[in-house]
Amino acid sequence: MAVYTHVTDTQVNALLAQYDCGHLAGLKGIAEGVENSNYLLETTHARYILTLYERRVAPEDLPFFLDLMTHLADKGLPSARPVPDRQGQTLQTLSDRPTALIEFVPGLALSEPGPPACFTMGAMLARVHGAVDDFAATRDNPLALPGLIDLAAACGAGTERCSPGLGALIESEISHQRDEEDPGGLRRAVVHTDFFPDNVLFSPQAEITGLIDWYFACTDSLVYDLAVCLNAWCFDDDGQFCSQRFTRLLDGYLSAGTLSEADRNALPLMLRRAALRFLLTRTYDWLNQVPGAVVRVKDPLEYRDKLRFFQKEAAGLVQEWLSV
Amino acid sequence: MAVYTHVTDTQVNALLAQYDCGHLAGLKGIAEGVENSNYLLETTHARYILTLYERRVAPEDLPFFLDLMTHLADKGLPSARPVPDRQGQTLQTLSDRPTALIEFVPGLALSEPGPPACFTMGAMLARVHGAVDDFAATRDNPLALPGLIDLAAACGAGTERCSPGLGALIESEISHQRDEEDPGGLRRAVVHTDFFPDNVLFSPQAEITGLIDWYFACTDSLVYDLAVCLNAWCFDDDGQFCSQRFTRLLDGYLSAGTLSEADRNALPLMLRRAALRFLLTRTYDWLNQVPGAVVRVKDPLEYRDKLRFFQKEAAGLVQEWLSV
Repeated sequence: MAVYTHVTDTQVNALLAQYDCGHLAGLKGIAEGVENSNYLLETTHARYILTLYERRVAPEDLPFFLDLMTHLADKGLPSARPVPDRQGQTLQTLSDRPTALIEFVPGLALSEPGPPACFTMGAMLARVHGAVDDFAATRDNPLALPGLIDLAAACGAGTERCSPGLGALIESEISHQRDEEDPGGLRRAVVHTDFFPDNVLFSPQAEITGLIDWYFACTDSLVYDLAVCLNAWCFDDDGQFCSQRFTRLLDGYLSAGTLSEADRNALPLMLRRAALRFLLTRTYDWLNQVPGAVVRVKDPLEYRDKLRFFQKEAAGLVQEWLSV
Repeated sequence: MAVYTHVTDTQVNALLAQYDCGHLAGLKGIAEGVENSNYLLETTHARYILTLYERRVAPEDLPFFLDLMTHLADKGLPSARPVPDRQGQTLQTLSDRPTALIEFVPGLALSEPGPPACFTMGAMLARVHGAVDDFAATRDNPLALPGLIDLAAACGAGTERCSPGLGALIESEISHQRDEEDPGGLRRAVVHTDFFPDNVLFSPQAEITGLIDWYFACTDSLVYDLAVCLNAWCFDDDGQFCSQRFTRLLDGYLSAGTLSEADRNALPLMLRRAALRFLLTRTYDWLNQVPGAVVRVKDPLEYRDKLRFFQKEAAGLVQEWLSV
């Protein structure tokens, strides 16, 4: 959450000279996105986000992300759209960083999305899943099960410094995930895998106006993407599970899409896998934080508790939802 | 340059309920202002800046700053205007911080203001100086000469760690400033004292659209305020003095205001005092920086060089400008 790389109006003017986007009229660094430097850039025509990609995004992945955003915007989804210059290029260089100019999407991220917002999000997620069917490019998920196993190894004994018993919890979950393997028949496509409420903007009329931060997008099962969403949206600020949010998000999904029998059967496993994924990345970041660094490290224990919850409850919750 | 205090949409909605400013439609932390937390707040009516004042601004000074901004906006100057709630209050509390909702002023801060921008700034400064005549409140300048002497003492021997010879330079300048005392007859009023190019926003048509960051405003001589501006605007990125910028800024000032004989005579002394002021505060911040802190410490040596330059050249430059 920061501006890492400083850019001047002179640099931005030189960049804008390659575009048909009007003249520079405003430039403010914004605290958005954990990984990149972002500016709110205003021209005489419109507002944009100028993103400079910092070291945690692999430059070779950028065409994939930018093409995906363009594909979704072309399909009428409220994804921020990368703007091509006069030569048709969306990827630029500024201050030695890969850089993109992206259309501004208005809206407000909700810190406490209630059941109606969860329904809206579920429906939007199904629409996104319907819109990537014909997106041909692929990208392996570095945080699929093998990646998670590597990450657990990299955390090693440090997990116990983070929280006593955490190592055993992680080990037992990895063992469960290995035993179950990936169930067959799951629908796979390019999915967001990071649809936290921060990355979804709403209008005052409670419609979704923006889907942002596609830089974890990769090829995985749709039901895993749904499980990430359920982890991120269905607990309150005190970590209490909200069954109404859970039910409404799933109902919303089914209002605009489908879940196959295989998808439904895999949902409990994926709820646990999604919890494990954020537990591991947050534990790793917590163990490897730079003292005084700009980025605020997110609490790993939130996902320890979610994993424990879903270990106990996921199968029953999904069963209950299906039976209604 | 950072967002220090995190606020949620729920908190902001509760604040906006006291205003007639429409419904919350967007909220982004922005990297503006060294001292405070700032959000770009968008409602269904308009755009605003939400400022939470952090520890470096004394809460008891806030009514002074907010009244000053209102006074200037009432006079038609492009100062950001604090917005009163339905009870007429501009000062609020959010997350235990004193907070104000301020009208958004559009525009772009120029990183390399050329001679025409300097003329425009000079003229605007004279207009500001004309508009504070009837602003009755006062605030002592904590960085007037006695404050600078205290600051030099607080830096102490540390100055030599910053740059060899710096202690002697500071001492010789303080001695010069003491000897000259404050010349009589200078016009005094409430002045900005921090009009760096960052704090002045321009339209694409090269008009000034915004004057921001009034949190160093205090009662001092107008010519000192002018000298701060000349220090901040009239050197290029490589630290080279730009005589055209200097001349045009002064010409601009005279196009919209006046300098008395006493003001003119004091200008060389004030050019040196303004350089000393930023040299001392930057040296102090450099010596007292927290490793890894969010705020980027500005280079003190830039002002060491400006002070040396004005020690040699200020009298001659002013003489030359007056003689043309």
